[in-house]
Amino acid sequence: MAPGQLAVGEPGTARIAVDLLGGDQAPAVVVDGALRACQADPALHLLLVGPLEAAGEVLAALPPSEHARISTLPIAPGDPVDSWVESGVRSAVLAVAQGTADAVLSAGNTGATVTSAALGLGRRPGVRRPPLAAVLPTRAGRLVLLDVGSSVDPDEETVATHARLGSAYAKVVHGVTEPRVGLLTIGTERGKGDRLRRALPQLLAGLDLPGGGRYVGLVEGNDVVTGAIADVVVTDGFTGNVLLKGLETAYAEVGSPNPAIPPRAALLLGVDGTVVVCHGAASGADLAAGIAFAAQLHRQAAVAAMAEMIETRRGVS
Amino acid sequence: MAPGQLAVGEPGTARIAVDLLGGDQAPAVVVDGALRACQADPALHLLLVGPLEAAGEVLAALPPSEHARISTLPIAPGDPVDSWVESGVRSAVLAVAQGTADAVLSAGNTGATVTSAALGLGRRPGVRRPPLAAVLPTRAGRLVLLDVGSSVDPDEETVATHARLGSAYAKVVHGVTEPRVGLLTIGTERGKGDRLRRALPQLLAGLDLPGGGRYVGLVEGNDVVTGAIADVVVTDGFTGNVLLKGLETAYAEVGSPNPAIPPRAALLLGVDGTVVVCHGAASGADLAAGIAFAAQLHRQAAVAAMAEMIETRRGVS
Repeated sequence: MAPGQLAVGEPGTARIAVDLLGGDQAPAVVVDGALRACQADPALHLLLVGPLEAAGEVLAALPPSEHARISTLPIAPGDPVDSWVESGVRSAVLAVAQGTADAVLSAGNTGATVTSAALGLGRRPGVRRPPLAAVLPTRAGRLVLLDVGSSVDPDEETVATHARLGSAYAKVVHGVTEPRVGLLTIGTERGKGDRLRRALPQLLAGLDLPGGGRYVGLVEGNDVVTGAIADVVVTDGFTGNVLLKGLETAYAEVGSPNPAIPPRAALLLGVDGTVVVCHGAASGADLAAGIAFAAQLHRQAAVAAMAEMIETRRGVS
Repeated sequence: MAPGQLAVGEPGTARIAVDLLGGDQAPAVVVDGALRACQADPALHLLLVGPLEAAGEVLAALPPSEHARISTLPIAPGDPVDSWVESGVRSAVLAVAQGTADAVLSAGNTGATVTSAALGLGRRPGVRRPPLAAVLPTRAGRLVLLDVGSSVDPDEETVATHARLGSAYAKVVHGVTEPRVGLLTIGTERGKGDRLRRALPQLLAGLDLPGGGRYVGLVEGNDVVTGAIADVVVTDGFTGNVLLKGLETAYAEVGSPNPAIPPRAALLLGVDGTVVVCHGAASGADLAAGIAFAAQLHRQAAVAAMAEMIETRRGVS
């Protein structure tokens, strides 16, 4: 099989382009994650994007009968190092754009991944800055938190778009009937919060949210733990990232509020393709969970379903 | 004894002015907290600021032999309600300014408390906006997080001042020999974070921190859980409040990373007096812990020690 080509075999096959160069301990931890993912899902095919030696380690660890599930897209070391590393995620995104892979998984620089995906796959109508949506376990089940690192200084319209995307996500991926969408702030009295938070409630209250979603008002950090008030919580990418890393680490240290622990991976919303991002410090198990999550989203055609839900609602298509 | 006068008896006595009107379930939960605090600490005297009926509930629940420990400062209902409620914390602060109480405890509106304290007690030199410092348990021990709700849109100089205050706090209250001070952000690569976070590292690296403190660079949400990198973490009051409420609730739900759980109360730094703030949703146990914390800070003369440490360092006094 030619490099970059993956067999499309049985129904349910998912072809995930994996960025071997992304992550604090790349490629070793990505090799580990890729192997774990292959072992867990016989219908998974991987396109390993990065140095040939790292891809070779995955092949060497798999029995020859499994080698047909692995393709490679070599990235040669370049100069400067940054652009070499980032060319991995760019090539992975391109493979999805060209139809040789179904989804991307990267634990690399978030900004590079978001930019590559926006340029390589295209943004949906109305989406200025695609947000990263993470899922946290809650006492009540699970909760979508966005943005968690893409838009650090968003304007009001960007957060409103993220509320729409988050509502569709909860409906399509989590099967929530009428997603409750809340705005994260620091006190539910009127006038609390910073400039952005004081301006947003009126805008959010006027939105027609897809998937039967409704805006439920202001929520606080504690509500992200309990899940009692909202299924979707919108915030700027700075606050979201800090809260996500804090809570995920707290749950890893002392236990989760819910035995059903979602993958520690975020989905990039508002682009024309399935792009899953893991933390830079992700473990092999986290990367395997991220790959499995990308495969699940592809199999349920989640990205297309969300786009249709949002754009029908907005009268775009 | 006249209203507003507390006996100063044995050494170690602490006279705490308690805002009966502050908190989502005031005054009932404050009455509960005041009683618990009295029962736990025989050298505690309380000045109950608020409606006489609520203060009467505390007295009725205590044996007559204990009544000398309780004074009252009646606040009559006024119009509009907001200014009535806020007059409780203003009067409590005034009692400290006049020397009839040693510290204030309020679970009321944070903005009103900060403003009342800044006006009624005065700010230390160089302090534009006094920050609220909370303490979180970590795997390694405990960590000072500030600001947690006072400055939601701080400028660089304000955060730098907070770093100095936090360093002195860790030294004086926690006995940390050389406090490690970190800046909360969303990725330790250069250039990550929003405008404030990109500008701050250079300023913080140049500070002469009191108490032997040193700036250790960028930290992330996960580092606030582990405590491995920093003893003091500075951030804006919006992010700090969201993270604090998230982590405190996570620890309450699933367990703390450390059996020594600090009081769920924050100290207002940079004012000339001891002002402790509880969450609006604080329980009776939280309020009792907050009162005990205020008493402890008074007994160790922590506020004066921090001010001396900072101003000697800066050459102000």
